[in-house]
Parts: sequence; structure tokens; C-alpha cells
Amino acid sequence: MSAIEQLRDKLVELQSELEKHKDENKIQREKIEKMSAEVVDSNPYSRLMALQRMGIVKDYERIREKSVAVVGVGGVGSVTADMLTRCGVGKLILFDYDKVELANMNRLFFTPDQAGLSKVEAAASTLNFINPDVTIETHNYNITTVESFDKFLDTIKNGGIASNSSVDLVLSCVDNFEARMAINAACNELGLNWFESGVSENAVSGHIQFIRPGDTACFACAPPLVVAENIDEKTLKREGVCAASLPTTMGITAGMLVQNTLKYLLNFGEVSDYLGYNAMIDFFPKMSLKPNPSCDDRHCLLRQKEFAAKPKVEKVETVEEIQAPVHEENNWGIELVDSSAPVTTEAKPKEVSTGLKLAYDAPDKTEAVVEGAVGNTADISLDDLMAQMKSI
Amino acid sequence: MSAIEQLRDKLVELQSELEKHKDENKIQREKIEKMSAEVVDSNPYSRLMALQRMGIVKDYERIREKSVAVVGVGGVGSVTADMLTRCGVGKLILFDYDKVELANMNRLFFTPDQAGLSKVEAAASTLNFINPDVTIETHNYNITTVESFDKFLDTIKNGGIASNSSVDLVLSCVDNFEARMAINAACNELGLNWFESGVSENAVSGHIQFIRPGDTACFACAPPLVVAENIDEKTLKREGVCAASLPTTMGITAGMLVQNTLKYLLNFGEVSDYLGYNAMIDFFPKMSLKPNPSCDDRHCLLRQKEFAAKPKVEKVETVEEIQAPVHEENNWGIELVDSSAPVTTEAKPKEVSTGLKLAYDAPDKTEAVVEGAVGNTADISLDDLMAQMKSI
Repeated sequence: MSAIEQLRDKLVELQSELEKHKDENKIQREKIEKMSAEVVDSNPYSRLMALQRMGIVKDYERIREKSVAVVGVGGVGSVTADMLTRCGVGKLILFDYDKVELANMNRLFFTPDQAGLSKVEAAASTLNFINPDVTIETHNYNITTVESFDKFLDTIKNGGIASNSSVDLVLSCVDNFEARMAINAACNELGLNWFESGVSENAVSGHIQFIRPGDTACFACAPPLVVAENIDEKTLKREGVCAASLPTTMGITAGMLVQNTLKYLLNFGEVSDYLGYNAMIDFFPKMSLKPNPSCDDRHCLLRQKEFAAKPKVEKVETVEEIQAPVHEENNWGIELVDSSAPVTTEAKPKEVSTGLKLAYDAPDKTEAVVEGAVGNTADISLDDLMAQMKSI
Repeated sequence: MSAIEQLRDKLVELQSELEKHKDENKIQREKIEKMSAEVVDSNPYSRLMALQRMGIVKDYERIREKSVAVVGVGGVGSVTADMLTRCGVGKLILFDYDKVELANMNRLFFTPDQAGLSKVEAAASTLNFINPDVTIETHNYNITTVESFDKFLDTIKNGGIASNSSVDLVLSCVDNFEARMAINAACNELGLNWFESGVSENAVSGHIQFIRPGDTACFACAPPLVVAENIDEKTLKREGVCAASLPTTMGITAGMLVQNTLKYLLNFGEVSDYLGYNAMIDFFPKMSLKPNPSCDDRHCLLRQKEFAAKPKVEKVETVEEIQAPVHEENNWGIELVDSSAPVTTEAKPKEVSTGLKLAYDAPDKTEAVVEGAVGNTADISLDDLMAQMKSI
């Protein structure tokens, strides 16, 4: 065989191997026009559409008409986006400005080969591969700067599935006070419902909080009294200190967040106003917080007025049970207020340690509203306790 | 340029592109000899080792000496294996005999390109890529057949990190009665602790149960009274019916399972005997079940005798708090018994529907022990309630 023939053979061989490798990177399922309930191995929606037959959800496919913004694509946000993508949500809008690092590998979702990529780009690529039916939009900037805040506000205002409509829900999965306040300000201004979420720096507790402007306390109505002072992860890392984290606590927090998102968007079950998780003793406190009538956020006050004037209609959707009764009785469903609630009167430290600052100067008014709220849920819990005692 | 030179150039170009694609498929981090607490972006263990500085875990790196068997690598098992891999467990032994299908894409972990692969092989490949420090062993067979059961028993008996040692824990993530009974029989025979887990077919509840042979009720002490009769997924699918499932419920169940696994293996917090999850109302019941003195499993009776004879020593490990006090007080940590516990006296149906069978014929003795167990926890809860009432 001549040299040129050998070269040609080698070239054909290489080209075919290359195509194979390219294919391996790209095997992606086709888009699916309409969700089907057909029970075949090739249907990625059969187990979700079965929620209708089980009497849990009336019309599961409505999820395709929903648009959800996820702010922060870290340990909680990435798993949140993953779950919503697998559930087939219509549109996901991701916000983050951080990069994937090997130091993030102790949480679910990202893989070591993505180290160095922007979190939103890496996430969008994985999510689009998992479910090409979901529209993924990415925003790679810090929402707390003045210019970016306007872009953020505009994006969630016009990010709905229908043109000129807002997103259906904003999920906060950020890790700092400033970003939470930015989301709070935007959602108060637009009257948009959102969930706040968080995990503790010792990795063994987490929480979600449902904020409906005017109806429940916003983040500025009862913010944490003490917050880290201009200390971001970079400063901490220079000092050789970082927060602990666990895939378990973050996965559970993301699960609680998306489960309540599904209940809200598809109208089933009870959406929790606040749900906490203490991993040390497997304790899951629930509570409700009323809005603060002297909140610092003027849009919150506007929303409170609107809410007070609105006629209260309870939206009840009945789901016909087609198969197998669902055993959901809960004779012991007592809800108790957590003693480690975000703000309590006792939690006012006289001295603030280095690196911490008071988040605001006038705790009196928030104290009042939080006391009221806590007292309120404590009263409810007491009634429940009494009822339980009698029934034993 | 001559034809041969052009060919040579093309060849070099192709070869380099091919290498790039091969690299893309294989960028995998090097193994890490010893876990480091150093706070740098390139350290995948910094956030886990920080649990020591936070005063949660005394010696995190002990996790490398632990071997865990995960039986069933579906919606709960795959996420369980993912979490344990990212936490850097020493060894994972995976059992399953099913294949990945597109119909599984509504749960976390598997990706559409893995459809058709065996679940254990697909999982092992992903997990090894995520963390090459974890030893992954796969077993692709059904543990309930006579021959395979012996292989299963032998594997968990000798699957520890040290030679001739057993695994440290078995996690059941299976979806049927027969497989749970097989795991139960093996663990009773070997005196091995294990966690049972499960999610309901309507996708909105889940649970985990810690079984310590001789100390707590085994799966045969108080099994479900009614189980599906020889109906596996294949039969159901032919009839166009399948169970519903959600990534949220399965992620939360896996999170509860692995969190309690970490607490048990690394000796921190309180390990729950039973933890349930009702997604409709965000209710998380806890309870304890004592072993049945007339259990059908003779190895269970042997373990009960051994446990009764053993001197009771409480193992307490103190962790020095180096930084930031952990606020873990829980004045409201009341544990209540769930009314929908696996077996209750009221739950005895007179008629069994088509496709269901009684799992056993003599419910009297289990009734007795379950009554006792429930009565017992109910008493404890009553005391707790009384104490709480007084303190309000």
C-alpha cells in the first residue's frame, strides 16, 4: 500500500472515531410537543402525569405555562433548577455571577469537569440536555448593583410565558443579605410572590419562607438583626475560613422549596408559609409571619393596603379521585413555632462581634410585629395542643 | 501544496480535534490521598472538613473508613449514592438489576443518554467521575432469588473496608416487599444495622426507618399487612398503569436517609428511628418501634436475646466548639406518633381488593407488639405535651 493510501485510510478511521465522540457528547432526546400519560419506558412524563390518575393534581400539563426565576445557582439553586427541569416547567430564568469550583463538589448537580465555567452556563447546558422541552434563560451578573438591579427587575417583570407577563414565581437561593434585600425590593415593587430559602453556615439547618407582598411579612418587615459586614466568600477564603455545607441539607432544602413551588403552581396540598429543618434532631418547624405595618419598604406598605382592600376569596380546587384513596389523615398535625425563629425578642445581642453589624437601627417596630406573629402562632399551637390532649 | 501534504495536515488537524474530544469526556480530577481542610477553590473537601471547625463533627475523615451498601439504585437510591459519593464515603456497594429508561428522567441523577444502560453501571460511571476517591462496587442481579440472596449476604458480610469485615450500613432503596424482606433476613442473620426507605405510589409521601436487629422492630416484626400480589412494574406497565413519582419527594427522602446515615457513621446529632414525610401538609412524623418477641424471623429472635443480655452503655462523643456557637435549642422538639404508622389496629381491612394479598396470616401477635410500641411512644409524647403545656 502506498504512503498516500495509508494516510487516506488513517484519515477515514480518525474521522469516523471523531464523529462517534461527537455523537456521544450529543445524544439528546427530541422535544416533546405535548405531555402524554402513556405508560411506556420512552415517555419521560409518565410518572408525572400519573399524579392526575392518583388524584393529586388536576391538570399537570399546566406546568408548561409556568415561568420560574431562580436567583442563585449554588448548592440549593442548582438542585432546585434540576428538579423543576425534570418536572417539565415551561421556562426557567437563572441568575448567578459565580463560577463552578471543585470546592462545590460536595453538593449535588455540578461535576468536576465544569470547574471554571460560569454557574449559569454550566447549569443551562446540563439542564437543556436533561430536558430540552424547558426554555432556559441565563443572566450572568450580580443583581445587587444599581444597573443590574434594573435589568433583574425588568427580566422578572417580563419573563412570563405569555408576552408582557411576569414570571409566575421567584425563588431566592442566594447566600447573602444584600441579594435577599434586592429580590425583596423587586418583588414588593412588582407585587410578585417569591420564596426565600437558606441553609446555615454550620450545614445542619435550612428553611424556606413564602413571601406574598402585602399578605405575609416581606424580608424587610422582619430581617435578621445581625448580618455579616461586607464579608463575602472571597474575604473569608483569604482568611482560611469557609462555611460548611452538606449535599443532604441542601438537597432537602431544595426539595422543600420545589415541592411547595409545585403545590403553589399546580394548586394541590397546603403551601407552607415557613418551613424549617433542623438536621441534628430531624425537627421541621412551621410558622406564619404577618406583614409589618411600619415596614421600611414603601412598596410593601402599598401592597399591604391593596391586600387589606381586596375581597378574600378562598380558591379551592377539587381533584376527582380515580384510583386508590390517598391516606393523608393527620390527627397529629400540630404546628409549633420554632424557638430559633429568625428574630425573637431575646435574640437582641448587646455586643456585636467583629465582622458583624446591626442590619438596622430601629428594632422596636419589627420586634412588635414579630412578637405579634410569634404570639399568634404560639396561640394556635396552644389550641392544637389542647385539642390533642383532650383526644388522647 | 501537494496532495500528500494536504492529507498530512488534515490528519494532524483531525488527530488534535479527536484528542480534545477524548479529553472532554475524561477530564477527571486526580485522587486525593488525605482530606484537607484548606480553604481553596480546588479542594473538594473544604466545605465538609469545615464541619469540624463548626463543632458539628469531631473527625470527618473517618468517613473514608466506612463502607455502605445501597440496595436499589432508582429515584431514592441513585440520589443516596450521589450524596454519599460527594461526601467522600470510603466504599459504596450498589445492587440493582434494572435498566435506566427515559421514564426515569422525572427523578434526579440519571441523564437521557444513559437510557438502556444498567442502573448500577450507569451510576458507577457517573459517581466515579464525580469523586474518584470513592471505591464503587456494582452488583447487577435480583437479590430475592435463592442463589443471588447468598451472593448478596456474602457481599455485605465481607464488604467492609478492612478485610473480613462487613459493610458499616445497608441502605434499602428498593420498591417492593420481597426485596425488603430479603434485606431484612440478611441483616438479621448478620446482625447488621440498616435503614429501610420508601415513597408512596402517589408520590406525595416518604419515610425512612432505622432497623437495629434486636434493638428495634425488624421489617418482619411489623410488616405491612397488605402488599401488592406478584405485581411488578412490568405487569403494571402492560396494563397502562404506573406509580407517580416526583424528584422532590425522592430527593427529600434520600436527603433524610443520607443525613441520618452521616449522623450514625460520624456520631453527631440524634439518629431518627423513623422519620416520615407528608408532602401535602409538610408534616414529618417520628416514632419508635420495639421488636416483636414473637417475630417470624428466627435470627431476629436471636438478636433480641443478645440485645437483652448486652450491658447498655451510652456512647457520648463531645465535640469541642472552636467557632460560633451552634443554636440548636429546641424547646418545641415534641415527637409525636403518626396515626398513619405502617400498621395500626384500625388499618386491618376486612376485604382485600384485586391485586392485593394479605402479607401474612396471623396479625394477632404483631398487632400486640405494634399496639405496645405505639402506646409507648404515645405515652412519651403525652409526657412531652404535658411538659410543654406547663412551660407555656
